Amino acid sequence: MKQAVLGVDIGGTGIKFGIVDRDGNILITDKVKTKGYPDPEKLPGDLFKWSATECEKLSIELVGVGIGSPNGNYFTGTVDYPPNLPWKGITPLEEYFKKQFNLPAALTNDAKAAALGEMFFGAAKGCLNYLFITLGTGLGAGIIVNGNLVYGHDSMAGEVGHVIVVRNGRQCPCGRQGCLEQYVSAPGIVKKYYGILRRKNLEKFRTSLGSMIDSATICELALEKDEIALEAYKKTSDILGLALANSVCYTRPEKIFLFGGLAQSGDLIFEPTKESFEKYLMPIYKNKISILPSGLKESEAAILGSASLIWKELEK
Amino acid sequence: MKQAVLGVDIGGTGIKFGIVDRDGNILITDKVKTKGYPDPEKLPGDLFKWSATECEKLSIELVGVGIGSPNGNYFTGTVDYPPNLPWKGITPLEEYFKKQFNLPAALTNDAKAAALGEMFFGAAKGCLNYLFITLGTGLGAGIIVNGNLVYGHDSMAGEVGHVIVVRNGRQCPCGRQGCLEQYVSAPGIVKKYYGILRRKNLEKFRTSLGSMIDSATICELALEKDEIALEAYKKTSDILGLALANSVCYTRPEKIFLFGGLAQSGDLIFEPTKESFEKYLMPIYKNKISILPSGLKESEAAILGSASLIWKELEK
Repeated sequence: MKQAVLGVDIGGTGIKFGIVDRDGNILITDKVKTKGYPDPEKLPGDLFKWSATECEKLSIELVGVGIGSPNGNYFTGTVDYPPNLPWKGITPLEEYFKKQFNLPAALTNDAKAAALGEMFFGAAKGCLNYLFITLGTGLGAGIIVNGNLVYGHDSMAGEVGHVIVVRNGRQCPCGRQGCLEQYVSAPGIVKKYYGILRRKNLEKFRTSLGSMIDSATICELALEKDEIALEAYKKTSDILGLALANSVCYTRPEKIFLFGGLAQSGDLIFEPTKESFEKYLMPIYKNKISILPSGLKESEAAILGSASLIWKELEK
Repeated sequence: MKQAVLGVDIGGTGIKFGIVDRDGNILITDKVKTKGYPDPEKLPGDLFKWSATECEKLSIELVGVGIGSPNGNYFTGTVDYPPNLPWKGITPLEEYFKKQFNLPAALTNDAKAAALGEMFFGAAKGCLNYLFITLGTGLGAGIIVNGNLVYGHDSMAGEVGHVIVVRNGRQCPCGRQGCLEQYVSAPGIVKKYYGILRRKNLEKFRTSLGSMIDSATICELALEKDEIALEAYKKTSDILGLALANSVCYTRPEKIFLFGGLAQSGDLIFEPTKESFEKYLMPIYKNKISILPSGLKESEAAILGSASLIWKELEK
């Protein structure tokens, strides 16, 4: 019987899940609303019923459950104080799934799961050292060294979005100022756009505040050669390029993958980021490290990433 | 027969070497002048004769040769374009030693070797995730993740001294501006001292330029409560604390070890660095990571580090 894994992606609004084979095919997928599970202990039971039914239909032997969750801790298998989930305190979600499924289960945060997905099912196949960066409402990262995710002492490695890049810079909800994700993220580029607009066209700035545009609109404007949108991309990419050049000094990746909303702006973000990256890169690294788009589809990355947690465990 | 390793430390002026047992005892040590070896291929022969004689006297079975060298590459076993050694181009030093000794040999750069020495013979015993920082004429680093040195794609990981911390900052010999080691190193604190002196006491600044003081003298002045020296320590530590706080975001070490000249200033550097570190640290990391002095003696670290390369290989 063909083997497959249940990949579960916990999000603030929805919980998506799918049955994933070793080749990265999502055989079937479904979702539920997160708010339907104020008690997280109920979730594994419902997913078990669903999986049992689907696996029988598909003639699949389920071999494990991988879970990606905001604030997911790989070492403890718990979801710890997630600000955007209805679960308070520390939730031993991995344990709940293990008990219900009587199978191996593994849990980590969503960016780390997606980084691993890149290795198994994306553009990082065969690459042993890389940096995976998600550019969405924040900046998340997964760092791969010698074929393994870097978890660090307590699973909280890879918080590249919270490297301070501007002293006394923009306030971050983490309590500090100048964190990278305040500049390089969807909200970050929007702030940059409005900062430039205010400086260059105060009248338009004032009238536009009534209906603020989002990062997708800035992308559209930039594609239409809007100067302010283009400058917002350039400035954002400059900060990203420097941050990536500095990141290289730590783990010397072979490749860097960009994933998420902002990364889908294509050349608008990749070209100036590469330029800034090479400019700030230490000479010994110059022209050796490629910055590439993720090979994962936005809609599949989370489930594939969660599933790859188990494929990774089974490799050991 | 008791087993031991030959540890070799290549330096710009001298080459030190010693026979090291598994407990970190340097049973015998000696040195030669680097300029005596314009042809590096001659070095292994001389060290072989020396080792053979000494090992016989000590009843030691030699099991390998570990080499720490500036610009040493662990993957290729070569010393690549070292600016401060008489060897041009790429020198396959590991291969020379392997052939001569007919034993396992391993080579890496000096900071990485010392970082490994900390694990085997210093204060990092049993610690799986740490950052080792040497503060000397530059800032070198060894990053340990899950019990292993991070080499990255080409052995050039861990160049933390070349993280850009000040945009358009001090010129670095690497060709860029604002590298961490331009601020946090022995020459870095000297520059800071003179910068403050110039601002606060222009007359003294002018007269002092004839006989510039070094970082050791700044340490003495600070111990005598000299205001300018104390401020130089505080400013240098502030930059180091922020850099270390940012470093934590990548690999989340359990501990950070400081080694080398500046680290020997004790509380003068540790206290303000810890203060700055905690101030800039992401809340999830606060009060969890200790900054400690290296447990290696300055005079022994290089040989112990080089030797530990082989003990590490033999563990596999």
